[in-house]
Amino acid sequence: MLQKRISCPTSGEGDILDITSIIRDLVTGSEVKTGICSLFVSGSTAALTTIEYESGVLKDLIRALSILAPSDIAYAHDSRWGDGNGRSHVKASLVGPSLTIPVMDGDLVLGTWQQIVLIELDTRARRDRNVLVTIIGESNNSDL
Amino acid sequence: MLQKRISCPTSGEGDILDITSIIRDLVTGSEVKTGICSLFVSGSTAALTTIEYESGVLKDLIRALSILAPSDIAYAHDSRWGDGNGRSHVKASLVGPSLTIPVMDGDLVLGTWQQIVLIELDTRARRDRNVLVTIIGESNNSDL
Amino acid sequence: MLQKRISCPTSGEGDILDITSIIRDLVTGSEVKTGICSLFVSGSTAALTTIEYESGVLKDLIRALSILAPSDIAYAHDSRWGDGNGRSHVKASLVGPSLTIPVMDGDLVLGTWQQIVLIELDTRARRDRNVLVTIIGESNNSDL
Repeated sequence: MLQKRISCPTSGEGDILDITSIIRDLVTGSEVKTGICSLFVSGSTAALTTIEYESGVLKDLIRALSILAPSDIAYAHDSRWGDGNGRSHVKASLVGPSLTIPVMDGDLVLGTWQQIVLIELDTRARRDRNVLVTIIGESNNSDL
Repeated sequence: MLQKRISCPTSGEGDILDITSIIRDLVTGSEVKTGICSLFVSGSTAALTTIEYESGVLKDLIRALSILAPSDIAYAHDSRWGDGNGRSHVKASLVGPSLTIPVMDGDLVLGTWQQIVLIELDTRARRDRNVLVTIIGESNNSDL
Repeated sequence: MLQKRISCPTSGEGDILDITSIIRDLVTGSEVKTGICSLFVSGSTAALTTIEYESGVLKDLIRALSILAPSDIAYAHDSRWGDGNGRSHVKASLVGPSLTIPVMDGDLVLGTWQQIVLIELDTRARRDRNVLVTIIGESNNSDL
């Protein structure tokens, strides 16, 4: 087992970071050959998922999230706290903070066009996000 | 490893329960210091995620879910079975039944404003929901 | 621990496969009695979740996904690559590629009306999807 915290500086609402290579390096550098790699972003206004890391589809994803939580409507969270980030919370909860990727033969199993991404949804200009990476498994290759 | 079933009584559609302290007590009471805590709600009309447990943003979340599955349109599920909870199934599937939180130094790793919530989406007045908690890991602190 | 790759042939956009019995057979055939079963679909245009496997609600789910990513609007992904599957990527990212189900007494813990499904979202007529199944746990029954 290996557990690491990685720090991901983001540059504002809608920023999407490809963290695949950072996670892959942790996996290949660990002793786990067969198992899972569990990822979690702490904080309630960011999320993790996979997507093809291509600027067009990243824009399409951000637009889809704005259908769920548009920027031009009132939020009860904002009326109450004046944070102005009600939409950020809603989007983050729907995408979700956790993601589990299998580890096989000491490497992540991902599709060719499938990257692991951290989505910054908060309205602040810059944040440092923490992603917790927990790799659990055996040091033997699987029998696949 | 520790596995427990917790029972969560809900009070109807849109009820959101903060289950963080129940889960945290299981984690701190277990022997696992480094690992993961995997949560799963059984049933197809409830879901798990994280959010800031603040009444305003909870309302905002419920409203966003109703954009995906409004209460004033017809559902094929309802036409067929007369259940009246087609929208509940749709929302539950999109949010998802599972969530994995890291365990570090014998405690859950969560953001300050990030609580673990069970969302009741069914249209019945009351239900008892079961959440399965599985804590997996080592009894040593991580080297973080 | 057991890790297997299962192959799931899909028949086009909106096809939803019930993979519960395949996963259940792997679980009951493994030596793990208490733990988790982690599922992951590789590829960026398919997703995993749970739902009641009933044709009406499956249609309702597909319609809800088309609210997030309609087929009659322009996608930056499509303008750039001409793939025509921008909507597929967006939907897949929002539902997500991973799912973790608890294993108790050597079996999956699911609600009666809760099945594990693979959702094909790509626009191609046929694909072979790979789902990675990783079962982690102990060979003792839990004390539940």
